Amino acid sequence: MKSVQKTVLVLAWLVALPAAAQIAKKPAVPAIPGYQTLLCDFHLHTVFSDGQVWPTVRVDEAWRQGLDAIAITDHIEYRPNKKEFASSDLNRSFEIAAQKAVDMPVLVIHGTEITRDMPPGHLNAIFLSDVNPIETETWKEAIDAAAEQDAFIFWNHPGWKRQQPDGIPHWYDEHEQIYSEGKLHGIEIVNYKSYYPKAHQMAIDKKLTLLGNTDAHDTIGMTYEADLGESRPYTLVFAKEKSAAAIREALFARRTAVYWQETLYGDSLYVAPLFYESIQVPDTPLVLHGKARAWVAITNRSDLVYRLELEAPVGGYEIAEEVVLASGATVPLQIRSLNSTETNETLAIRFRVTNILPRPDQPLRVTLQVPVQRLASQDAK
Amino acid sequence: MKSVQKTVLVLAWLVALPAAAQIAKKPAVPAIPGYQTLLCDFHLHTVFSDGQVWPTVRVDEAWRQGLDAIAITDHIEYRPNKKEFASSDLNRSFEIAAQKAVDMPVLVIHGTEITRDMPPGHLNAIFLSDVNPIETETWKEAIDAAAEQDAFIFWNHPGWKRQQPDGIPHWYDEHEQIYSEGKLHGIEIVNYKSYYPKAHQMAIDKKLTLLGNTDAHDTIGMTYEADLGESRPYTLVFAKEKSAAAIREALFARRTAVYWQETLYGDSLYVAPLFYESIQVPDTPLVLHGKARAWVAITNRSDLVYRLELEAPVGGYEIAEEVVLASGATVPLQIRSLNSTETNETLAIRFRVTNILPRPDQPLRVTLQVPVQRLASQDAK
Amino acid sequence: MKSVQKTVLVLAWLVALPAAAQIAKKPAVPAIPGYQTLLCDFHLHTVFSDGQVWPTVRVDEAWRQGLDAIAITDHIEYRPNKKEFASSDLNRSFEIAAQKAVDMPVLVIHGTEITRDMPPGHLNAIFLSDVNPIETETWKEAIDAAAEQDAFIFWNHPGWKRQQPDGIPHWYDEHEQIYSEGKLHGIEIVNYKSYYPKAHQMAIDKKLTLLGNTDAHDTIGMTYEADLGESRPYTLVFAKEKSAAAIREALFARRTAVYWQETLYGDSLYVAPLFYESIQVPDTPLVLHGKARAWVAITNRSDLVYRLELEAPVGGYEIAEEVVLASGATVPLQIRSLNSTETNETLAIRFRVTNILPRPDQPLRVTLQVPVQRLASQDAK
Amino acid sequence: MKSVQKTVLVLAWLVALPAAAQIAKKPAVPAIPGYQTLLCDFHLHTVFSDGQVWPTVRVDEAWRQGLDAIAITDHIEYRPNKKEFASSDLNRSFEIAAQKAVDMPVLVIHGTEITRDMPPGHLNAIFLSDVNPIETETWKEAIDAAAEQDAFIFWNHPGWKRQQPDGIPHWYDEHEQIYSEGKLHGIEIVNYKSYYPKAHQMAIDKKLTLLGNTDAHDTIGMTYEADLGESRPYTLVFAKEKSAAAIREALFARRTAVYWQETLYGDSLYVAPLFYESIQVPDTPLVLHGKARAWVAITNRSDLVYRLELEAPVGGYEIAEEVVLASGATVPLQIRSLNSTETNETLAIRFRVTNILPRPDQPLRVTLQVPVQRLASQDAK
Repeated sequence: MKSVQKTVLVLAWLVALPAAAQIAKKPAVPAIPGYQTLLCDFHLHTVFSDGQVWPTVRVDEAWRQGLDAIAITDHIEYRPNKKEFASSDLNRSFEIAAQKAVDMPVLVIHGTEITRDMPPGHLNAIFLSDVNPIETETWKEAIDAAAEQDAFIFWNHPGWKRQQPDGIPHWYDEHEQIYSEGKLHGIEIVNYKSYYPKAHQMAIDKKLTLLGNTDAHDTIGMTYEADLGESRPYTLVFAKEKSAAAIREALFARRTAVYWQETLYGDSLYVAPLFYESIQVPDTPLVLHGKARAWVAITNRSDLVYRLELEAPVGGYEIAEEVVLASGATVPLQIRSLNSTETNETLAIRFRVTNILPRPDQPLRVTLQVPVQRLASQDAK
Repeated sequence: MKSVQKTVLVLAWLVALPAAAQIAKKPAVPAIPGYQTLLCDFHLHTVFSDGQVWPTVRVDEAWRQGLDAIAITDHIEYRPNKKEFASSDLNRSFEIAAQKAVDMPVLVIHGTEITRDMPPGHLNAIFLSDVNPIETETWKEAIDAAAEQDAFIFWNHPGWKRQQPDGIPHWYDEHEQIYSEGKLHGIEIVNYKSYYPKAHQMAIDKKLTLLGNTDAHDTIGMTYEADLGESRPYTLVFAKEKSAAAIREALFARRTAVYWQETLYGDSLYVAPLFYESIQVPDTPLVLHGKARAWVAITNRSDLVYRLELEAPVGGYEIAEEVVLASGATVPLQIRSLNSTETNETLAIRFRVTNILPRPDQPLRVTLQVPVQRLASQDAK
Repeated sequence: MKSVQKTVLVLAWLVALPAAAQIAKKPAVPAIPGYQTLLCDFHLHTVFSDGQVWPTVRVDEAWRQGLDAIAITDHIEYRPNKKEFASSDLNRSFEIAAQKAVDMPVLVIHGTEITRDMPPGHLNAIFLSDVNPIETETWKEAIDAAAEQDAFIFWNHPGWKRQQPDGIPHWYDEHEQIYSEGKLHGIEIVNYKSYYPKAHQMAIDKKLTLLGNTDAHDTIGMTYEADLGESRPYTLVFAKEKSAAAIREALFARRTAVYWQETLYGDSLYVAPLFYESIQVPDTPLVLHGKARAWVAITNRSDLVYRLELEAPVGGYEIAEEVVLASGATVPLQIRSLNSTETNETLAIRFRVTNILPRPDQPLRVTLQVPVQRLASQDAK
Repeated sequence: MKSVQKTVLVLAWLVALPAAAQIAKKPAVPAIPGYQTLLCDFHLHTVFSDGQVWPTVRVDEAWRQGLDAIAITDHIEYRPNKKEFASSDLNRSFEIAAQKAVDMPVLVIHGTEITRDMPPGHLNAIFLSDVNPIETETWKEAIDAAAEQDAFIFWNHPGWKRQQPDGIPHWYDEHEQIYSEGKLHGIEIVNYKSYYPKAHQMAIDKKLTLLGNTDAHDTIGMTYEADLGESRPYTLVFAKEKSAAAIREALFARRTAVYWQETLYGDSLYVAPLFYESIQVPDTPLVLHGKARAWVAITNRSDLVYRLELEAPVGGYEIAEEVVLASGATVPLQIRSLNSTETNETLAIRFRVTNILPRPDQPLRVTLQVPVQRLASQDAK
C-alpha cells in the first residue's frame, strides 16, 4: 500500500506539466543606432493584489508575446485576496514571477503600485529591493520610502476618470512637490486603453519619461479584445543592452517611446531612427516611362504600421498623397513624371507619418530618397 | 491627513475593475429533440493545485467562450502552491469560482481530481459537497469517500504516457473493482490534446459516459495554440434544462458527446439528430437541365464542421463524392442527371460523415433528401 | 488517332472544374417588420470595361459573401480592353454574369456606368434592357436613353477627387436639370473606401435613395485589405421579397441603408428596427444586490456592430457609459443601484448608437428596456 | 459640347485606378548556400482558356503573395470563351500578363498546357517563344513543337481522377516515349489540392524535376479556403539569381522543392540546408540545474513550419519527444539531465522532421547542436 507521501513525491515529477511549453512570437521592432529596442510593460497586477492571475502567468504571457521585461506592480493598499494568503510579505508576487523567469529571456523587475486618492493618485515604483517598507500611513512617506531604494517612480493613468472625472490630467501641488524633490521620473501617457495627450505634453514640458503600460488585472488575452481590433500598449526602451540595469539607465535617461493601437509616441530622437530602420527603399532607380505612372516598392520590415501623407509636392512629379506601410509588407508608392525629358535623379519626398507623434497632434516628418530614371518613351501600362 | 483605512475603503469601489467586462461568443450548437445541448468542461485546475490561474479566471473563460458549465477539479494530492495559502480547505477554489459565477450564466460544479499512480491513475469526482473527506491515505478510500457523496466519478486521460507508457488504456483490476461497485461512471476519451480510441471502445463496451475535457492548468488561450489550428475539447451534455441537477442526470444517463479538433464522438442516438438539426437542405426542387451539372446549396447553421463522403451511388445520377459543410456556411453539392427524361423526384443521398464517430473509426451514416426537377432542355453552364 | 475536335468534346466535360465549388458565408442581418433585408452592390466592373475580372467572378464573389443582388455596371465610354473582344455589344458582360447566376441565389441586375466629366460626372443606370442605345454623344442623351428604359439612375462617387478636387460633392445645374426631370433617383454616399457626408445630406434634402457600393475593378479580395481592417460597403435594400422587381420597387421607394466599416447610414424608419431586431435583452429581471454592481447580458445576434453611449442618466442608478455590442456576441452592461430599497421595475435606458447615422454626425437614439429586481442585501462580488 | 472622343481621352488618365495599389506580403523562406530560394507557380489559367480571371490578375496575385515567378499556361485545346475574343493568337494571355509585370518584381514565364486525353494526359510546356505552333493535331506533334522551342516540359496532375480513375499515376508507354526522347523533364507531385506519392517516387526514380502548382482557374482567394485551413502549393526553385534564365537552368538541373499544406517535399540536398538556414539554436549554453527540467529556445525564422520528433535518445538526458517549430516563432525544447555531475558539453540531438519528405513517407533527419552547462545544484522550478 502506498503512502500519500510517496505518491506525492512521485507525482512531483509526473504531474507537473511543462508550463513553459509555449510558442513565443516576438514582434519585429528594429534596434536604433547605439541602442537595442526592448519591449516592456511596467504595470501588471496579480492575485496578490486585485488581479486574476498567478504571478507566473505574467512571465508566460511576456514570453509568448516577446516582451523583454515586465514589472510586477501589485497594489500595496488594495489586496482583496489578502485573507487567502499565508504570508503578507509584499514581495511574494515578484518572487514567484522572478523564480519562474530564471533562465528565461524575460526580465522581471521588482515593483509596486502606491495606490492613493488623487492627488497624487496612483504611482508605480520599480527597481525596488523590498516593497514592505513602502506600506506607510501617508502617500508622502510611501514615495519617500521608494525613493530611498533609488526607485524609478512614475505617475499612473493621470487622466483616469475614477480619480479625475473630467479625464484631463492635472498637475497638483503634490506632483510638483515630489517632482521638485527628484522623486517623480515618468508618466504613463498610455494606460490600459487610453492615451492622455495632456500627460504627453506634461512629459515634454517637465522632461518626464514616457510610459505606456497595460495595467492588466486579467490575462492579457481577456484584457484586449483581438476580435474588436484592440491591442496592448508597449513601452519601448532604447537600452545599451538587455539587462535590468540597462533598462533602468534608459528609463532615467528618458530613452523610451510608447506604441499602442498602431500609434507611436516619442521623441523624434528615437522614433525617427526607428522609422528609418524599419523601412527599405530600393536603391536601384525606378524607371519612369514618359508621363506614365510607376510604383516604387517600399518595404516595412517591422511589425509596426506607418501611415504616410505627402507633406509637400515634388517639383515636376506627381506623387501619391497617402500610403500605408503595413507591417511586414511591401507597398507600392505611385510616382509620375509631369514631363518627359530624360534624366536620372534622386527625389527627396517628404511625408508626415500621421501615426508617429513626437508631440500630441504633431506628426513626425520624414524624407524618403527615391532614385528615378526617366525615359522619354511613354510605354504606359 | 488620510488614514490607510479610509484610503482602502474608498479604493474598494474605485479600483476594482469590472472583471466581467468581457465579450462572450457562444458557439452555435443546436438542441436535439427533447434536450438542450450544453457545452461543458469537467476538468480544470487552478493555483490551488498546480494550475496557473485564479479560480475566477475559469469562470471568465467559460463566459467568454460560451460554456454552460465547468467543474473545478484541483488535485488533492499535488498542491505545489500549498504553502502560499492561509487555509488548506480543499473546497476553497470551488468557492471562489462559484462566488464569481453568481448571477452569471455559467454553472460551476464542485469537484476534485483524485491523483494516484496507475492503476487506477487519476479520477475526477464531481457534484461533491465537500472535498476534504476525500483526502485519504489510499486511493480506494478516496473513491469510497467520493461515492458516499453520490459523486459522478470518471477516469481521466486513461492513455496518458506518463502513467501508461505505451499510450494505450488498460482496464486494470482496480478499475474492474470500482466499476463493479458502481463507483466508476465515465471515462475521458479526449483529454488535453489527445483522443484515446481504446478508451472510446471501453466506454461503449462497459456503458461508461463519454467525456472530453481540457485538463487546463494554464489559461485556455495558452493551452491551445490558435495559430497552429489547435482548439479545445468540449463535453456536449444533452440535458433536460440548463441546471447542475439536469447535467448530473444527463451524465449518469450517458447523454453526452465529445467535440474536439473538428471531430464529434458520441452515440448515434445523439450525434445523428445533432447533425440533422445543424443542416438545412432547400425544400424547393433543384432544377436539372438535361445532363448539365447543378448544385444544391446545403447550409450548416452550426459552428461544428461536417465532412461528408458519398456512401453509395444514386441510380441515374452523378453526385459529388465529397463535400465539407463548413461552420455557418452554405456549400454547393454537385448533382448531375445521367439521362435527360423529364421527371420530379426526391433523391435520398447517403453519406458517411467522416468526422462524426459513433464508434472509433466507424463514421456516422446520414441521408440527405434532395428534391430535384429534371428538365429535358440542356442549357448547360 | 484522335482528332482535335474529338479531344475537345471529351474535354468539355472532363476539364471544366466546378467553378461554383465555393463556400458561402452570408452575414447575419435581420429582416425588419414588413421587409426582407437584402445585401446588394450596384456598382461593379469587369474586363469588359476597365476591371480585371471576368463577369462570372462577380457572381462567385457575391455567392461567397452572401450578397443577394449585384449590378454589372461597366463603363460605356472607357473600355481599355475593347480591342481584345470579338463583339462590341455593351450587354455582353451582363449576359455572361447572368448566365452564370441561373439557378444561383444571386440576382444579377443589368446596368451600366455613364462615364462623363464633371458635371455631371459618373452615373449608374440599372434595370436596363439594352445598354447599347446609351452610348451617345452627349451625357444628356445618355441619361435620356437610360430613362427611356425606366432605369433607376444614381450619381456615383460625387466627391471623387479626380473630378471634384476638393472632395466635396457639389450640386451642379446639370444635376438639378435631370433631377427636376425625374431622371436622378439616388446617390452614392459611400463609394469604394470613402463616405461623403455632404452627399448624405443632399440625399436627405432632395429625397434621393442612399447607395453604398464597392465600384470594384479588381477582385473584392484585392480591393479591401482585410489585414488592414478594411471591409466592403453594402447597400442594404428593404424589399418585400427577394426579386429584381422588389429591389427596383424598394430603390424607387428609398428603402435602403448603407453599411460600411462598421457604420450604418440610413433613415431611422429602417435602421432603428434593424437595430432592435438585432438585439436581445433578457426578459428575466437582473438581480441587484443592494448597491453592488451587476451586469445585464445583451446579445447582438447580427453580424453588424453597434457602439452605444449612454444618452442620459437613469435616476437612482449608475449605468455604464459605453458598451460595444460586438457582432454575434453577448456583452455585459454594468448597472448599479444607488440606493438599497427593495423594488422591481423596468429601466428605460437611453443610448446613442454612435455608429448608426440617420443624418451625418447625428447618431440614432435607442432605448433598451431592462427589468431589474432590487434586493436589500448587499452581497457584493 | 464635348465629343465622346475627348471625354475618353480625358478619362484614360482620370478613370484608370492604380491596379497595383496593393500590399505585398512575401513569405520568409531562406536562401541556401549558393542559391536564392524563389517562390514559383508554373501552372495558371486565365479567361483565355477556361479560367475566370484576366491575365493581369495572375500578376497582381503573385505580387501580393510574394511570388517571384509565375507561368501562364492556358489550355490550347480547351477555350470555352474563345468566341468572346477578337484574336485567336494563343500568346495573348501571356502578353497581357507580361506587359502588366514590366517593372514589377514578378517574372512572367511564357507557357501553355497541352491538354490531351490520358495517356499522356496534360503536360505544361514553359519558356516558350510562341504557343501557336503547338496547336497541332496529335499530342506527339504538340510535344515535339514545344521541344523544338527548348521548352521545359512537365506532366501535370498525373493522378487526376478524371483521367486516371484510381488516382494512382501510371507511367504509360507514351510517357516513356517522350522521356526517352528527352522531352519530359518534370512532374507535378502536388497539383491544386492533391499530393501524389507515386508521382514523387517516379520523379526520384527517373530523375524528373519536382513541381507543385496551383492549376488555379479561379482567383487564388477563391481556390484555397483560408477559413478551412487550406493553403496554396509553391514550387521552390533554388536559382543562382532571380531571372527567367536562372529559373530555367535550375528547373533543368532539378533544383526544386515543393511546399504545400505545411509539408515540404524535395531532395535532402536542398531541403536540409533550407531547414538549417531557417533554424536558430542559442550558442550560449543552456544551464541545467541538477536534474531539473530546462528549455532551450529554438527559433524558426522562416514562414515554413517544422514538426520534429526525437529520432534517438541522448545518453544521460531526457529530451522532449516532439516539438513544433511554428513559423516565425521561438519554441522551447525541454531537456533534463538524468544525473547531476557538473559538466559542459554540446548535445547532438537527432530528430526526424515529419513534415519534410525527401522521399514519400521518409522524413528528413536532422541534428541540432545544443550546448549545455550542467550545475550540481538542483534549484528546480
